[in-house]
Amino acid sequence: MPIQPIAETMLTAIENELLEIVTRTREPDHDGLYRMLAYHMGWEGEDIGPNARGKRIRPLLVLLTTGATGGEWKRALPAAVAVELIHNFSLIHDDIQDNSPLRRGRPTIWKLWGSAQAINAGDAIYSLAQLALLRLEGTSNAEITIQASQILQNACQKLTQGQYLDIAYELQRGMNLESYWSMIEGKTAALLAACTELGALVGFTEAHIQKAYHSFGYHLGLAFQVRDDLLGIWGDSLITGKSTQSDLISGKKTLPVLYALSKNGPFAKRWEQGAITPDEIPALVTQLEVEGARAFTQERATEITRKALKALQAAEVKGEAGEALTNLTEELLTRQV
Amino acid sequence: MPIQPIAETMLTAIENELLEIVTRTREPDHDGLYRMLAYHMGWEGEDIGPNARGKRIRPLLVLLTTGATGGEWKRALPAAVAVELIHNFSLIHDDIQDNSPLRRGRPTIWKLWGSAQAINAGDAIYSLAQLALLRLEGTSNAEITIQASQILQNACQKLTQGQYLDIAYELQRGMNLESYWSMIEGKTAALLAACTELGALVGFTEAHIQKAYHSFGYHLGLAFQVRDDLLGIWGDSLITGKSTQSDLISGKKTLPVLYALSKNGPFAKRWEQGAITPDEIPALVTQLEVEGARAFTQERATEITRKALKALQAAEVKGEAGEALTNLTEELLTRQV
Repeated sequence: MPIQPIAETMLTAIENELLEIVTRTREPDHDGLYRMLAYHMGWEGEDIGPNARGKRIRPLLVLLTTGATGGEWKRALPAAVAVELIHNFSLIHDDIQDNSPLRRGRPTIWKLWGSAQAINAGDAIYSLAQLALLRLEGTSNAEITIQASQILQNACQKLTQGQYLDIAYELQRGMNLESYWSMIEGKTAALLAACTELGALVGFTEAHIQKAYHSFGYHLGLAFQVRDDLLGIWGDSLITGKSTQSDLISGKKTLPVLYALSKNGPFAKRWEQGAITPDEIPALVTQLEVEGARAFTQERATEITRKALKALQAAEVKGEAGEALTNLTEELLTRQV
Repeated sequence: MPIQPIAETMLTAIENELLEIVTRTREPDHDGLYRMLAYHMGWEGEDIGPNARGKRIRPLLVLLTTGATGGEWKRALPAAVAVELIHNFSLIHDDIQDNSPLRRGRPTIWKLWGSAQAINAGDAIYSLAQLALLRLEGTSNAEITIQASQILQNACQKLTQGQYLDIAYELQRGMNLESYWSMIEGKTAALLAACTELGALVGFTEAHIQKAYHSFGYHLGLAFQVRDDLLGIWGDSLITGKSTQSDLISGKKTLPVLYALSKNGPFAKRWEQGAITPDEIPALVTQLEVEGARAFTQERATEITRKALKALQAAEVKGEAGEALTNLTEELLTRQV
């Protein structure tokens, strides 16, 4: 995606701060632990570079928000990297839980060093996230640091609750829609809401503006996930670079599928019989559309996107950062990948 | 062990605060997550009770320390339960990493719910530990809360470093003595040092007293571990209720064994050939003693214990809590179990 100059500057600052935090605890007698973290962060090992690092969207959201409140974005760097480290801790543990051999095109930590070391590497990053956040005291003050820690840890609680639901339903072919919303709230929306709330907090905004930013991040997260569900079935394979049908084949519990299951029609009957084969995909995708699953999901996406944009408007973004934040939002919510 | 009235009162307060923290996040749609945590904490499921809960020695150390500085121990409750939650998070992950089916005589979380849920349950407790600690702001102030968070997270970093070494050397039959000290510093001493330092911090003691308490907890942890290593080989099986030889059979890297390996004598030659069988134990235990491993370990234990007691003296403990802290120390460092 095209990146504006201010975002470029922020991304460089994020990478430097991340590197500093992760490197600080490096010592000769446990250097191997550092190397796992540096590998996962995309700084060491094979195929390093931007792709191995991920987009760092969450910390960018934190900084853009602080900037968009009219605040000095550099003061929010500790919160930004804390959020990115929390995201990465959860990815490392997620990969073990899902038995995923690849992350960002490279072998996962558990695949290279075993599950025991991977669990521990995730724990180490989690702890670094907290240590990173405490540096807010130097750029802001003690009260803000404690409020920030509360916001971040509440998001972590929701993360584990969402993850609990995801794992608990793993062996089942369905899940009710209520649990779906709880799951994606925990797995995606809670941390994005924390990003924008933290950014606003460090910007010393008024309470109603901070609330608007929280609501913006929350709905941005939900909308992003629902769009992801749509693209996982109806995305253009030429654009996504993966089979458009993969979510149906992997049996992932996405909103269109769960909607169709709640209707208990022909799609549900086939789904409950077990794994879908590639040759069944075209007919099943049509069937999902006939049963209204695509329209339902599209409506939810539109509705939530509207809420996100309304909240962003209420937040009264300012300056170059505000413009970049608006652009990033549009890109995230219209992405085809 | 005999418990003094003040310690009894503290243990009740600890249990109530723990229960409140863990129950706060309980909600119907992810009740199963709460039940795993409540099971692990010894409040739910089969065989609940004091044995299932563990001794809660770490939070007790925090509160006794605050009391022994002349401070109001109740104000340290958030720090005390935070430490106990960190300890329990590490146990849950440790059990997965070690593939241990039992903890405190009951099936481990991963054994009952699978590794994926167990990793997540540990993460949830880790996050609760941070949320618990933040309540210090209400009983103390913002500055103390941030310092406490720093102390706790530094200990967590060391915990993951010690765990890294433990896992890294798992498949090897040996480890140099330097790595041994790094490992037990991380796995045992760092958290005990955090306990007494946190207790002193909340007691608003002078810097040199806080430093003495840190040193006390640190050496208490090391001494406890080295004694544990001795008891794992020379402990009276009638008292320990387990085979005295188990550490030799399990291949655990204890101080007497690592000392003998560094001597590269007959014991080392046998050890390097693979697993020890029960019938070899009597001769090997004698061999260890002949090679000076028992005397070496005993000397280290005595030396570190002396440092712990000297630090305790420098801390100038006061009142009933001070007396209870001294008694607890003696019990921990002369225990036969």
